[in-house]
Amino acid sequence: MKKLINNPKDIVDETINGFVFANKDKIKRVGDFTVVARIDAPVKGQVGIVIGGGAGHEPLFLEYVGKGMAMSEAHGQIFTSPSSTNILEAIKIADSGKGVILLYCNYTGDIMNFNMAQELAENEGIKIGTVRIHDDISSATRENREDRRGTTATHIMIKLAGSAADSGMEFEPLKALMERAVENSRSLGVSLSACTLPETGMATFTLEEGKMEFGMGLHGEAGIKKVDIMTADETTVTILDLIVADLPYKKEDEVIALVNGYGSTTRMEMFLIMRKIHSYLADNGISIYSSEVGEFCTSQEMAGISITLIKLDNELKKYYDMQADSPGYKRL
Amino acid sequence: MKKLINNPKDIVDETINGFVFANKDKIKRVGDFTVVARIDAPVKGQVGIVIGGGAGHEPLFLEYVGKGMAMSEAHGQIFTSPSSTNILEAIKIADSGKGVILLYCNYTGDIMNFNMAQELAENEGIKIGTVRIHDDISSATRENREDRRGTTATHIMIKLAGSAADSGMEFEPLKALMERAVENSRSLGVSLSACTLPETGMATFTLEEGKMEFGMGLHGEAGIKKVDIMTADETTVTILDLIVADLPYKKEDEVIALVNGYGSTTRMEMFLIMRKIHSYLADNGISIYSSEVGEFCTSQEMAGISITLIKLDNELKKYYDMQADSPGYKRL
Repeated sequence: MKKLINNPKDIVDETINGFVFANKDKIKRVGDFTVVARIDAPVKGQVGIVIGGGAGHEPLFLEYVGKGMAMSEAHGQIFTSPSSTNILEAIKIADSGKGVILLYCNYTGDIMNFNMAQELAENEGIKIGTVRIHDDISSATRENREDRRGTTATHIMIKLAGSAADSGMEFEPLKALMERAVENSRSLGVSLSACTLPETGMATFTLEEGKMEFGMGLHGEAGIKKVDIMTADETTVTILDLIVADLPYKKEDEVIALVNGYGSTTRMEMFLIMRKIHSYLADNGISIYSSEVGEFCTSQEMAGISITLIKLDNELKKYYDMQADSPGYKRL
Repeated sequence: MKKLINNPKDIVDETINGFVFANKDKIKRVGDFTVVARIDAPVKGQVGIVIGGGAGHEPLFLEYVGKGMAMSEAHGQIFTSPSSTNILEAIKIADSGKGVILLYCNYTGDIMNFNMAQELAENEGIKIGTVRIHDDISSATRENREDRRGTTATHIMIKLAGSAADSGMEFEPLKALMERAVENSRSLGVSLSACTLPETGMATFTLEEGKMEFGMGLHGEAGIKKVDIMTADETTVTILDLIVADLPYKKEDEVIALVNGYGSTTRMEMFLIMRKIHSYLADNGISIYSSEVGEFCTSQEMAGISITLIKLDNELKKYYDMQADSPGYKRL
């Protein structure tokens, strides 16, 4: 493993400190907790959007705190859910009395700790709602889609929720909006190489020379199909055939089309994928409202990409189009 | 090599098409040239900032076209200067009659082709100026600093130039501003692994297990010192000792402090570096006006980082603080 670190046990703490130093006019750390918040949190009259998850996927979730994005974030250790103690602190700093909605990805450890924090916060009289992201079509059947993992739709879910909260939307309609956004999202990825864990130097899995695997999880969870490396175009078609059929996305739907790089994949490769997404969706009569290309949710230095489609309606478009100013995602 | 590509000879063309598809409301391609421009180019009454360079370093230069950034860009093949024909097209689309300034990095091939395009444009009656970026302190002595390579200060140079041009600054003061910004910039990087060229699958150089090399160029040019892998803190101190002494940056200077990832280095590592930059500069009485962390200038999937310091004055601050909206760099 070749990584620029100091003491492995300090990585997450030092990451957060470096992040807060770099954004000190907009972000604050909450005590010694692995929690960051908007500098002006809590914002009066506003439902608080609280996010969080394991470290190692940066910019997710750490860098998605800011105007038009989340109010606070609880960061875990690498590939590990944040503790309920940290989540509770994130809830408290986000709560202005209008309630707090927890928005996170569907993983067993996260569910356990967020639920525990929710109970503790409710005992303190804070109104709490939960929305779990489950966009990864490879991890359960369509019928059991609430069991699917949350992956690369996440930063857009945060964008929509944060911008709606910033607009003063009330608790119940905001929660319904977030649930609809999740229900409209589908993702599938392909991995070309493993990543190494900085604390141990160990690879999360192995993938033979010349092979790639569809549906692999962000922590090396087994995928659905291992094949010889395909071209960019073939890869795109394979993924979109599965995603489009799953919602299903239909003629005249308007979508956000998103290519995410997992870590060491170049932007050239991502643009090749985006090029084919445009021709594929045009052939199917699905129109692209907006395209996003970047490393939004990584798995350390894993090679590979994922594609996400998010179906929009007029209300979702309105909140997507508002300005957002977080360190990890900006929209003008 | 594990990359998601189609026909290797089409990579650059397909990259540009995917990029333009993804940003079709803001960016246009100029004919079949490897040239992109702001959708509203040329902008009346405004000096045109034209940038360009070899492909393979994305987001540099391709994605730095937009409001508050460059007017147009000429993209080369991988690690190869754009041709004078393409540069001439980039000049023409940027020219509103107020003159055009060519802003690019100091490499032999780029100088040759940009000079040739400049001559062709001047023959057509277009007023042209040239500013070359030479921030990499490893590639020539301080006295011969105009011979140094241009590297990871580049997107900020484009930001300052583009925002000043958008403000209506005239040709001569704009060129002087850009020269001052370049003169105030210093960078140095360290590489931990080579990258592979997508056209051939060949690595650009080799670096033994457990080693890292300071001062390596963006195309595998030899560095200045090969050492055993250091900690993040030691790496930062080694780089900053050299950079700070070179300008030299002094007590009470205000700087932009920038950490650039070359490709496969994680954001966690970059934040560890940023954390140490903050304590190092504080110890030296140099204050940080703004911090930037990201992949601004890559070398495919090379592992490593560079640090850049840019000394600001009130005029440079003003243009740095303006909004910028390019696909590769946004500022609110």
